[in-house]
Amino acid sequence: MSVRNLLLLSNSTIHGSGYLEWAAQHIQDFLKSKEVKKVLFVPYALRTMDNYTETARKKFTSWGFELDGIHTSVDPVAAVNNAEAIFIGGGNTFQLLKGLYDNKLIEPIRKRVLQDGVPYIGSSAGTNVSTVSINTTNDMPIVFPPSFDALALVPFNINPHYIDANPGSTHMGETREERINQYHEIPGTPPVLGLREGALLKVTGDLALLMGLHPARLFRPGKQPEEFPVATDFSFLLK
Amino acid sequence: MSVRNLLLLSNSTIHGSGYLEWAAQHIQDFLKSKEVKKVLFVPYALRTMDNYTETARKKFTSWGFELDGIHTSVDPVAAVNNAEAIFIGGGNTFQLLKGLYDNKLIEPIRKRVLQDGVPYIGSSAGTNVSTVSINTTNDMPIVFPPSFDALALVPFNINPHYIDANPGSTHMGETREERINQYHEIPGTPPVLGLREGALLKVTGDLALLMGLHPARLFRPGKQPEEFPVATDFSFLLK
Ligand SMILES: [Ca+2]
Ligand SMILES: [Ca+2]
Repeated sequence: MSVRNLLLLSNSTIHGSGYLEWAAQHIQDFLKSKEVKKVLFVPYALRTMDNYTETARKKFTSWGFELDGIHTSVDPVAAVNNAEAIFIGGGNTFQLLKGLYDNKLIEPIRKRVLQDGVPYIGSSAGTNVSTVSINTTNDMPIVFPPSFDALALVPFNINPHYIDANPGSTHMGETREERINQYHEIPGTPPVLGLREGALLKVTGDLALLMGLHPARLFRPGKQPEEFPVATDFSFLLK
Repeated sequence: MSVRNLLLLSNSTIHGSGYLEWAAQHIQDFLKSKEVKKVLFVPYALRTMDNYTETARKKFTSWGFELDGIHTSVDPVAAVNNAEAIFIGGGNTFQLLKGLYDNKLIEPIRKRVLQDGVPYIGSSAGTNVSTVSINTTNDMPIVFPPSFDALALVPFNINPHYIDANPGSTHMGETREERINQYHEIPGTPPVLGLREGALLKVTGDLALLMGLHPARLFRPGKQPEEFPVATDFSFLLK
């Protein structure tokens, strides 16, 4: 029986709405139910970390939570070890994962979340790094991390910002579905949950629930992709 | 004075046309001007290498050239050392670059092209690996190569399948331009030439010429992106 508490958002902002607004109620409920007062924010996915932390701080303060940026801490590992809750924001997944490795945070975050039950919020790149690996990120590989292995807080991968093929497009780059299918041609790859913008997965121990605004698309090696509606119990992916 | 001869295609197939058809005349002229009879094909970017090689062989045979797949060679390095011309096809750039490293082909191909003047054709992923690094590929990182450093046949990067932002889109994932700009926030990164589908760069020694159907978009750190029409002399990027 796992003690993990995860809120994994496909993305931070949906079209026509402010930063994190679409998920405001989910985030507040999640943190308040755990009596969190202060959140540790990990802004490594963007290079403008001070500005990024200010954006996040404003939003969380408006909801009644304090927020610290880990990048201003002299001892990031200690910051993780003392954190009441961790929020890893979006940006570039390669930059983010490299930042986690450079600061030796992979094992400390894993331990805090999986053993101590510290609430974890991920958005976009922050959701990618919560899974087995970043093999299914959409980002450009602008920096080289020491590995694509990630936090493995869940035993599958997520494709955030999942997008359906545009039937009217004449562009010949691979569709998102084709990319994920190419990943699944490799033996031993885990399932990939495609989370559309405005969707999130809430994981409580061994229970995983799809929430938010859109159905999700599940890809499993050797199977046809399947659509699952909001409120689907995805606990079978945690086994 | 470099002896290199490169034909760097943005992509293999444009909408509504057959495999390599849009570039048929360019490829035939390029190979015939060098009196090439047989092409060494590198199909590592896809996992179905036999099928992929058959597709390429049919097309090159119809143009009067023989074609061998390097994956059936017992000694890929020897195959490179004996090649009259090299064609690296598209697919997944990470898989391709890993294949080049796994088969210890980076230095042999570099030497053949830069010192011996062996003609090199790249398409899509095969164009990405011809540049400084694969940092500006569009592909999903489905496998982990030992480095993002590539063949460095030219001293800049290319973004193949370059696509302009769709002003009607409500999707919040980064536009291509935003992704390249994020890359250029990193100190020391080289220029990135955005080649739209149906565009190619022909490099002859120290001369680089934009050919094909579309203008290219050039990104340089600290500068506004610039549009350049077909027939632009891009030799300044080789300095
Ligand atoms: Ca991103
Ligand atoms: Ca590709």
